[in-house]
Amino acid sequence: MRLEDDSVVVLDQRRLPDETVELRCGTAAEVADAIRVLAVRGAPAIGIAAAYGIALAASRGESLDAAYETLAAARPTAVNLRWALDEMRPDPTAERAREIHRAEVERCRRMAAHAAALVQPGARVLTHCNAGALATGGYGTAVGAIRAAWEAGLATHVWVDETRPLLQGARLTAWELDRLGIPHTVIADGAAASLMAAGDVDCVVVGADRIAANGDTANKIGTYGLAVLSRHHGIPLFVVAPTSTVDPATATGEAIPIEQRDAAEITTRFPAVNPAFDVTPAGLIAAIVTEAGVHLPPYEESLPR
Amino acid sequence: MRLEDDSVVVLDQRRLPDETVELRCGTAAEVADAIRVLAVRGAPAIGIAAAYGIALAASRGESLDAAYETLAAARPTAVNLRWALDEMRPDPTAERAREIHRAEVERCRRMAAHAAALVQPGARVLTHCNAGALATGGYGTAVGAIRAAWEAGLATHVWVDETRPLLQGARLTAWELDRLGIPHTVIADGAAASLMAAGDVDCVVVGADRIAANGDTANKIGTYGLAVLSRHHGIPLFVVAPTSTVDPATATGEAIPIEQRDAAEITTRFPAVNPAFDVTPAGLIAAIVTEAGVHLPPYEESLPR
Repeated sequence: MRLEDDSVVVLDQRRLPDETVELRCGTAAEVADAIRVLAVRGAPAIGIAAAYGIALAASRGESLDAAYETLAAARPTAVNLRWALDEMRPDPTAERAREIHRAEVERCRRMAAHAAALVQPGARVLTHCNAGALATGGYGTAVGAIRAAWEAGLATHVWVDETRPLLQGARLTAWELDRLGIPHTVIADGAAASLMAAGDVDCVVVGADRIAANGDTANKIGTYGLAVLSRHHGIPLFVVAPTSTVDPATATGEAIPIEQRDAAEITTRFPAVNPAFDVTPAGLIAAIVTEAGVHLPPYEESLPR
Repeated sequence: MRLEDDSVVVLDQRRLPDETVELRCGTAAEVADAIRVLAVRGAPAIGIAAAYGIALAASRGESLDAAYETLAAARPTAVNLRWALDEMRPDPTAERAREIHRAEVERCRRMAAHAAALVQPGARVLTHCNAGALATGGYGTAVGAIRAAWEAGLATHVWVDETRPLLQGARLTAWELDRLGIPHTVIADGAAASLMAAGDVDCVVVGADRIAANGDTANKIGTYGLAVLSRHHGIPLFVVAPTSTVDPATATGEAIPIEQRDAAEITTRFPAVNPAFDVTPAGLIAAIVTEAGVHLPPYEESLPR
């Protein structure tokens, strides 16, 4: 993802892994469209795209108020979007947007080092959706942690939930792991439970779209179910996300708005509902890892620290 | 599904709901192929298809030993296949096969009446995969129970897991419920947990491919996870299946062979595994309903009765 003179350029994640195609957004509204249709997705990545969108609007002399509003409305659940827009307000320049991008990638590297230390030697790690370089502007949160744990000789294999309905695991996480040379196997989301029962999963590592002050965590639909299954099987579930994903203004998960996407994304000709996220209660999360370190329960106390 | 003079005719379930196409199988080996590729699927239905396959082989003067062997090897998990073949041995005639077919549909109606009595008024029922008329030669096991509960004014809505990887819920169960006029909504498999957490699911009703003597139940991959989630949320899970699905010769779920299907069924270009079934321990099942009645734990005692 990058800012050019006349556009924000993003890798179109809808076309991966079949095609590697860039999408050029010439206005803040086009950046908002790219976020809405998931050409660019992942909580940190949409924050970075929004920051570039503001810088683009400023350089083009667009109304900044309109640009803020359009971008903030693109998707409701990830708090990073609003966080990045707030960061841009005092200084809506290209330099500031690039600094936000650099800082997010640097945060990923730091949290990955913290999170890797939680992974036991020989661990088979299960992940859901894509919290990799594509989702974060570089390196990745959950996938960054897995990468660091693999490079340290700890993690040995990755189970990749395909992650319906849009298959971000099967398309994006598997593509990233393939490029990194990390052994992995894609599974249907429904197969995770029996792998756990068979003793083939040692920990679950996921990203987050918003973390409430008490540690309740919104992430891709299906994460909450994984957390319940993990608890049932005595397997720790770790959330890996930058502090820009933590929202002190949201007290608990109940206050997190859950985006309902077009039912047409579900492959059926019959009535369907398509919530994009669910909320995992803090009590099911073994640790939340940010660039600041490993936060343990009670999260009301450890997150502010 | 029916036997004609020169063929076994099945509705090709791979083409539903887009097309309603019959497939004509001219030999027992072609019936086995239809079972293997899932043109006909569902534990009771593949038993009926195998019975017709034997009758066809007998009428054509094929080797019956070869026909038995080919049909028994078509799929490993559902015990109904072997059960129906054993039933055909003493009398491999068209009349006997049609009697097996009629008896399975009649069992469905009886078990549905038993199961409907377990459904509370106003219940929102969640089901997984397709255990409907398509899967059973008529009426259905889990879907039959839902139908009976709906006709009795008890069940009010059905949540249909799309059921990856082959979408039998989104394609087949939704198609059946649509034709029956029963209100339903398709969801991604990963959305079931958050619906339960929201209080929107009152019970889970599934079919079975094999029930061990102790009540452990093999069913479509994802069923075990649903059972763990149901227990976590205090929601009963009911298994509805004919006695032909109960296998007294299989002591526990550990002895049930789990079919591993082609990884290509998972939509990815990366490495994948594709177990078709999982095993739900008896302890997570609130009741097993057969045509004989409602069996409660301990199943070692209630199933033989």
